[in-house]
Amino acid sequence: MKPITITGVRVIDLRFPTSRESIGSDAVNKDPDYSAAYCILETDGEVEGHGLTFTLGRGTELCVSALKYLGRFVQGRTLESIVSNLNAFYLEVTGDTQFRWLGPEKGVIHLACGALINAVWDLYAKTMGKPVWRLLAEMSPEEIVSAIDFRYIEDALSPAEALEILRHGKSGQADRLAILEQRGYPAYTTSVGWFGFSDEKIRRLCREGIEDGWTHFKLKVGGDPVDDLRRGRIVREEIGRKNRMMVDANQKWGIEEAIRRTMQLSELEPWWMEEPTSPDDILGHARIRREVKPIRIATGEHCHNSVMFKQLLQAGAIDVCQIDSCRVAGVNENLAILLMAAKFGVPVCPHAGGVGLCEYVQHLSIFDFLGVSCTMEDRVIEYVDHLHEHFRNPVKIVRGHYAIPQKAGYSIEILPESLEQFSFPDGIVWRDHIHETRLV
Amino acid sequence: MKPITITGVRVIDLRFPTSRESIGSDAVNKDPDYSAAYCILETDGEVEGHGLTFTLGRGTELCVSALKYLGRFVQGRTLESIVSNLNAFYLEVTGDTQFRWLGPEKGVIHLACGALINAVWDLYAKTMGKPVWRLLAEMSPEEIVSAIDFRYIEDALSPAEALEILRHGKSGQADRLAILEQRGYPAYTTSVGWFGFSDEKIRRLCREGIEDGWTHFKLKVGGDPVDDLRRGRIVREEIGRKNRMMVDANQKWGIEEAIRRTMQLSELEPWWMEEPTSPDDILGHARIRREVKPIRIATGEHCHNSVMFKQLLQAGAIDVCQIDSCRVAGVNENLAILLMAAKFGVPVCPHAGGVGLCEYVQHLSIFDFLGVSCTMEDRVIEYVDHLHEHFRNPVKIVRGHYAIPQKAGYSIEILPESLEQFSFPDGIVWRDHIHETRLV
Repeated sequence: MKPITITGVRVIDLRFPTSRESIGSDAVNKDPDYSAAYCILETDGEVEGHGLTFTLGRGTELCVSALKYLGRFVQGRTLESIVSNLNAFYLEVTGDTQFRWLGPEKGVIHLACGALINAVWDLYAKTMGKPVWRLLAEMSPEEIVSAIDFRYIEDALSPAEALEILRHGKSGQADRLAILEQRGYPAYTTSVGWFGFSDEKIRRLCREGIEDGWTHFKLKVGGDPVDDLRRGRIVREEIGRKNRMMVDANQKWGIEEAIRRTMQLSELEPWWMEEPTSPDDILGHARIRREVKPIRIATGEHCHNSVMFKQLLQAGAIDVCQIDSCRVAGVNENLAILLMAAKFGVPVCPHAGGVGLCEYVQHLSIFDFLGVSCTMEDRVIEYVDHLHEHFRNPVKIVRGHYAIPQKAGYSIEILPESLEQFSFPDGIVWRDHIHETRLV
Repeated sequence: MKPITITGVRVIDLRFPTSRESIGSDAVNKDPDYSAAYCILETDGEVEGHGLTFTLGRGTELCVSALKYLGRFVQGRTLESIVSNLNAFYLEVTGDTQFRWLGPEKGVIHLACGALINAVWDLYAKTMGKPVWRLLAEMSPEEIVSAIDFRYIEDALSPAEALEILRHGKSGQADRLAILEQRGYPAYTTSVGWFGFSDEKIRRLCREGIEDGWTHFKLKVGGDPVDDLRRGRIVREEIGRKNRMMVDANQKWGIEEAIRRTMQLSELEPWWMEEPTSPDDILGHARIRREVKPIRIATGEHCHNSVMFKQLLQAGAIDVCQIDSCRVAGVNENLAILLMAAKFGVPVCPHAGGVGLCEYVQHLSIFDFLGVSCTMEDRVIEYVDHLHEHFRNPVKIVRGHYAIPQKAGYSIEILPESLEQFSFPDGIVWRDHIHETRLV
């Protein structure tokens, strides 16, 4: 590896005014302005590391402030000194003795850790001249295991078990890569059914989706039961029975309400019910799952760390594990979650959309297929068709599949002109609309 | 109630340099500077509302920033408009459509909600001319229930069950108040056994504690097993077998290690083992509890919301429910937790210490005795003997018991000169020591 030192950390508050078009609206998140706390690791070499954590607008400044603080854990260090012990680095960043109180391992500070750790992986992969998925796939099982904090998850997955999964994942990897390069990784679209969309718009978008080759469609529910069912019937009517439909309540309901409402939607034959209740309610999800069978239960985008994922798996609470690239502390923690999901036999279908989440998670799912679960059965990556134009290497979708990214890094680099235009509050898109923001 | 309008919200970053003396040190929190994001609700009346959320130094600025944002939910409003529907207020503050993403209901933003909601209760109680415990005890069961968000906890505690508990709690209340006024509320001391203290200091502090009438002593563990046992033996030697000793590992261990280490300490006959592992691990605590019986398991100070407490109770994971006055969103959410603990028959022994936590939680335990569990059996409030001199109405300890506070409000008001001297980074105690802080 080329010797390289991180000489500075630039942090940017980046906000896209998506609420102006109801994009991203659901039963709980009614007016998101897709945003990010974005960081650039400046170096004395030829490459920079980029990372972001996804937010919804107001409050992004908190993640920005946390990220500025956490910058001290990379500032002035060589990349070598970090990647030679990735778990030690993870523990430093997440375990600052005073900062840790504000979590631990959750909320604002953990979201900020996600941006920083992901930026390190971006820099690592660029320095190695590989996309992150390939860097991971080519690391030895021992190297992967040494990047993971097993402290609180060892009762569910020991380092020895992780090694065994990863060693098994080495065999046939070239064949699986050939399949991926030919077919891509299957995706589903959430763009047809945002909460703020009219019936007509949903119908039109479903038709366009079918024409574009989509086979999996997700609809936001959690409104008036009659509306939910009517909207769901439109989707089912348009996509037919051979395509799959998922519904997403975005945490709207209590346990008993979730059971009742899910059953009311059963005629739609949803492939999964997503976020039926509080993301913290492991036992609640387990009960819902038992009572709405055979409808499958999905959650994870708000699941804040590997300890929570561990319990969702231990309790038999989920049929679908929806990892998020930023909510947990970056690649390291997601490696632990991919391995636990593989051990428990639960398919990983990452949460995406927002800003940069599609760009990030494709790498994790590709690595899951190449080196962890080694299957794409019942696995799809979320896709939302917004904001990709701002990325230097945006995801590429072909007939409902992610094409495999080939450029070095984590695909998360945003174009300099976008960083400028959408920076908050001074970017050009915000200067004229400052009245729309409700910041102090 | 007198008409009163909140005209402004002042927020202060307050830090005490406690790390200079190893005060508050444990196996995980090695160098805390007890701090707070502090807010003052300015009004057009004669009283102000004060509230704080406790932090450990670095990162307090994040809670300060969040609190400044949340101020908008009270700014310009009448107190009447807030307290006439306390749950609606709770939902507004915790449910801001964009801010919520940063939790939800956890971490920095939830800590900030705690400060703001507690400040409203302080203002409410002062306006009514009562301490918070009396305000609560004199509210009708229906009023208490209307302050609680049952959305995600109704499967464990319905509003009807809560009403029944509270109605039962009305009978004999005057007798219980007489007992309290005579005896005070039992407490335990954590001041004898901080991690950074020498054996000699522990021994001396135990002797002084016995002389002062303490009967319950807590020791920090989670270091080298030999050290833990030696320190524990010193405490047991000094306090004898008729007094109670608790041990606290501050989340240091994984599940299997926690079981092994707890068993190694069993000769000390600890009354409880506190925070043996990750605060998020409900199933892990349940397993530890099963395997170390009869040693009792305690946790809660890092339990971030009522959904987590619900599951700790549902899973039979705890023998002792350690509520925190700031970690969850203030009095409202703690009412839910007190009621759930009463339903499940688990004693509440609040976490305290830090800055202002003793001042706060005495009100919650007193209300628990007067109107919820109606018993003090196996219930003690934590006490730490630091920083009380900064409060206008500090807690008063008499022979190991909290004397019942009589002044109106939530006892959380800090003296103006302390607010000035310890404000960060401009207060006099910080100006000369700025090199000790590692803030950006």
